[in-house]
Amino acid sequence: MRAIEHCRELAQFTEEPGHITRTFLSPPMRGVHELVGRWMREAGCEVAVDAVGNIRGVYPAARPNAPRLVIGSHLDTVPHAGAFDGILGVTLALELVAALNGRRLHSEIEIVGFSEEEGVRFGTPFIGSRAAVGSLDDDLLHRIAPAVCDFGLDPAAIPDAAWQENVRAYLEFHIEQGPVLESLDLPLGIVTAIAGQTRAEVEFQGHANHGGTTPMHLRHDALAAAAEWILAVEDTARKTEGLVATVGKVCVDPGAANVIPGHVSAVADVRHADDAVRHNAVARILEAASRRVPCTTRILHDQSAVPMDPHLVAMLEHAVCVSGFPVHRMTSGAGHDAMIVARRFPAAMLFLRSPGGISHHPDESVLAGDVTAALAAGAAFLEQWSAHV
Amino acid sequence: MRAIEHCRELAQFTEEPGHITRTFLSPPMRGVHELVGRWMREAGCEVAVDAVGNIRGVYPAARPNAPRLVIGSHLDTVPHAGAFDGILGVTLALELVAALNGRRLHSEIEIVGFSEEEGVRFGTPFIGSRAAVGSLDDDLLHRIAPAVCDFGLDPAAIPDAAWQENVRAYLEFHIEQGPVLESLDLPLGIVTAIAGQTRAEVEFQGHANHGGTTPMHLRHDALAAAAEWILAVEDTARKTEGLVATVGKVCVDPGAANVIPGHVSAVADVRHADDAVRHNAVARILEAASRRVPCTTRILHDQSAVPMDPHLVAMLEHAVCVSGFPVHRMTSGAGHDAMIVARRFPAAMLFLRSPGGISHHPDESVLAGDVTAALAAGAAFLEQWSAHV
Repeated sequence: MRAIEHCRELAQFTEEPGHITRTFLSPPMRGVHELVGRWMREAGCEVAVDAVGNIRGVYPAARPNAPRLVIGSHLDTVPHAGAFDGILGVTLALELVAALNGRRLHSEIEIVGFSEEEGVRFGTPFIGSRAAVGSLDDDLLHRIAPAVCDFGLDPAAIPDAAWQENVRAYLEFHIEQGPVLESLDLPLGIVTAIAGQTRAEVEFQGHANHGGTTPMHLRHDALAAAAEWILAVEDTARKTEGLVATVGKVCVDPGAANVIPGHVSAVADVRHADDAVRHNAVARILEAASRRVPCTTRILHDQSAVPMDPHLVAMLEHAVCVSGFPVHRMTSGAGHDAMIVARRFPAAMLFLRSPGGISHHPDESVLAGDVTAALAAGAAFLEQWSAHV
Repeated sequence: MRAIEHCRELAQFTEEPGHITRTFLSPPMRGVHELVGRWMREAGCEVAVDAVGNIRGVYPAARPNAPRLVIGSHLDTVPHAGAFDGILGVTLALELVAALNGRRLHSEIEIVGFSEEEGVRFGTPFIGSRAAVGSLDDDLLHRIAPAVCDFGLDPAAIPDAAWQENVRAYLEFHIEQGPVLESLDLPLGIVTAIAGQTRAEVEFQGHANHGGTTPMHLRHDALAAAAEWILAVEDTARKTEGLVATVGKVCVDPGAANVIPGHVSAVADVRHADDAVRHNAVARILEAASRRVPCTTRILHDQSAVPMDPHLVAMLEHAVCVSGFPVHRMTSGAGHDAMIVARRFPAAMLFLRSPGGISHHPDESVLAGDVTAALAAGAAFLEQWSAHV
């Protein structure tokens, strides 16, 4: 299973021996470029690294000036990562092109390995795909420029990394990074949208008092109020089809065992494929916060859902179906490069089951059978694409 | 109102200008000893500082070898304290003796200002009263010895600080440090017991997962489990007469807004005047913890309730009543020197209303009218004591 072996090979390039940690334009990214570049050339591609560090291999079409399909994902990792998040999307693209064995299609195929998706080095994610759609703002450009120079690239040329009009579609294979496909015993999932996300903070204002001397009926306990709210958030999500809502962060003040909490802040992360459903749920969640003690609420972050291109989604469904696998449509709860690319180009994603739902962890894995399924569906997609482009 | 003015005067002796902070045998305690010693002598007492730093003024009885009543509280403070916690118990004792105006009773009266109650300097509270009952263990003696020497006292003489058999009772006036008397519009409260206390830690073991990619029905959220438990703790306390239970401390791991909490630890502090009621409530509370995810529980601390001496309580009730104030019996939810003294000598406490329930804070206060009430009740108690001793 070469797509998996290639991921394992790339895992050797790391900033921390014994772990997989490879951030934007860090020194080990050179080794990745060398190896991926060699594999691209072996598959018949012409290889270049653009000014933001994306590695791009173009497999020519049967005729000049043909439209282009881009297939890929990212090559950077979180700290102490697994071997497959992002990387597998690049090695799968390589296998699909290699399998053509020199045969030309009616479309160019570009394999892209984005330089940055995780947001680790500069606290801002999707640097590679933002450059591809020409949406890197000046502030971010300014911040990354020294790292770009250090890697031997020219920050002034980053605008040239933007994809041209000949790009007609972007396809990304990615591990699910969640437990849904495993729980349904399915190898593949067709992403119909990347969920919109609201992050909201609630501050509960009670009265701090001595836990031994204040009777229950004279308390204004900010933590008990927060506890009711945490359960209300969960209840709202359970009752709303497709909604996920998480309270992952709680700060209790003063935080002493014998003092009734006077102040608690908590953050809810709410996601859904439909922005209207999400906004409605957020409104109910924030309303539930003020049941017991006064509170203030603040929206920290509100990001719209990004639908995948319906035509590409339909083609992926067909491809999965004719390859003999069950068609399962799903929402991506996490952000991906396809979300950024979709701002300017038709985009689609195919998820591969994540055993144990595990990702961003050394135990992250993928099943060989699922990779075979993804390759079969990808090959069917390419044929269909070539026939209709 | 001299008892209040004296508290304000003593507040000037502090380790931190602008705040009231006076820990065990800290330099400002010398100024306190000088002033309190002068007031004791003016009231007709013979003054000594024992080897653990308790200041003691003995007002003689009408005849030699008479039994002794000790009245007092502590002179140390928490950091950034108010002026009355502990101190008022000493200045009230001074006023009661001064009001005798040289008249001898059938009992000696000792005014005590304990050197340590708050546990700030050595992390162990009640050092002064532990010495008075001869229960300072060797480890604590060893730890405090350098501070004792620095203050010019002799650690080897600490065993001599233990009270003798001639002590027949201990009476402590103290601000309530809670909101009960204020909520009932009462000046005084007669303490019948100091509540027993259990501190229990619960660790909730869920599964940390991505908050965006894990559907609600596949979660094992340790924080939602803890939230249910926090409300169960509150509910148990509300349904159990006289019980207070507080969850004041919660740690969420990993504590990121987009990660379902995998592990949460929380601590409950449970108090009641009746140990059986408390133990029963703790059992129900710990049972409620395991409803949703596996958890482990640990008792960090279990301290029995300390009843006040019934005979002294009855005398205090009588004294309050004949002084024209409503009799209200109550439990002390916080620990006090009287709790330690009660191990060897009959002890009783009279609470004064705390405006706003505020204590351990610069806004801590006491009403002049309530001090007048306490003095009247104290004087009535003394007459009664002298008549029956």
